[in-house]
Amino acid sequence: MPKRVDHRARRALIADALIRVAAERGLEAVSLRHVAAEAGVSAGMVQHYFRTKDEMMAFAVGAVAENVEARLAEAGGPAPDAPPREAVGALLGQLLPLDGARRTEGRVALAFHAYAAVRPAAARLNSGNERLRGFIADRLRAARAEGAAPPGIPEPAAAAGLLALVEGLALHVLTGQTAPEEADALLDAHLDALFTRP
Amino acid sequence: MPKRVDHRARRALIADALIRVAAERGLEAVSLRHVAAEAGVSAGMVQHYFRTKDEMMAFAVGAVAENVEARLAEAGGPAPDAPPREAVGALLGQLLPLDGARRTEGRVALAFHAYAAVRPAAARLNSGNERLRGFIADRLRAARAEGAAPPGIPEPAAAAGLLALVEGLALHVLTGQTAPEEADALLDAHLDALFTRP
Repeated sequence: MPKRVDHRARRALIADALIRVAAERGLEAVSLRHVAAEAGVSAGMVQHYFRTKDEMMAFAVGAVAENVEARLAEAGGPAPDAPPREAVGALLGQLLPLDGARRTEGRVALAFHAYAAVRPAAARLNSGNERLRGFIADRLRAARAEGAAPPGIPEPAAAAGLLALVEGLALHVLTGQTAPEEADALLDAHLDALFTRP
Repeated sequence: MPKRVDHRARRALIADALIRVAAERGLEAVSLRHVAAEAGVSAGMVQHYFRTKDEMMAFAVGAVAENVEARLAEAGGPAPDAPPREAVGALLGQLLPLDGARRTEGRVALAFHAYAAVRPAAARLNSGNERLRGFIADRLRAARAEGAAPPGIPEPAAAAGLLALVEGLALHVLTGQTAPEEADALLDAHLDALFTRP
């Protein structure tokens, strides 16, 4: 009987290698050859699992998104019954590059964004943002309905703005323009303004 | 008498070529060879003006920043006596990739950010953001002092947040996650909330 190959594990192994290469040396180093060397497999093997660089990049970004979600679940938040301010804060805090793991993910996400900006076909997989926006808008609606949060910009626009703010802050931290603690404090201040009555 | 060479013009010619290559084909295509071909000069000439890729990238980003400032001045805003809401809106609108020129610049900026995120030495030139933050904070302070804007988050934090929001929106537009018109409307809604009493 031929040996059974765990294709999922192989793809994951290759994607992990890609993430490390992209985070350490940048997008330019993400070639078939470099990724194969980092994963300890042949270039042919990489090509067997990912026919194009777009496919490989898309898979790696999906893997990063899964890491973020796993870390969120592990952190215990956002629990379904957490107060809205805490639930949204726990979620968005995971998107700020405040420690090594999140910095690595942030660099990969940034590299992928730069890549996707010149290849519209590669951009289709950012569907996670829709869900994030919906989650934030729902929590804000709940907080306003309870009278805990002040009225203001309609919830969908407020949610889109808050998510953009966090991504902008992440960019500033990754490029050394803002200290991680400052980004964290800025997110806190904006969450307070949105979710807490003065 | 030897022919006098306009070194500034040569550097600008090469930087323009780099900007076009980065905007059209992404950061990976920004090699000495590609930039030389696009500029119609030899690779040796590129190396004469830019010893390293970091230097070339830094110069190109500086050129983009100058383009943005020139367009701002041309648009007539922000005039020193413009109302704060309009002055800040005119400024930040120039950072959203709402037309071809701004999309090109946005792509280059994004490519550079991804590049700088893995090369701390390349990140030092984002000093423009300090000035932008200061400008926004000053305008907000003025609007609050006049009683036109509601109180809220301290001005420096509000300014940093607004700038992060705009950069996040730009990222979403460049990667096809948000339509340009939606980003424009979101910026407007957030400017209204910050600068106008309900």
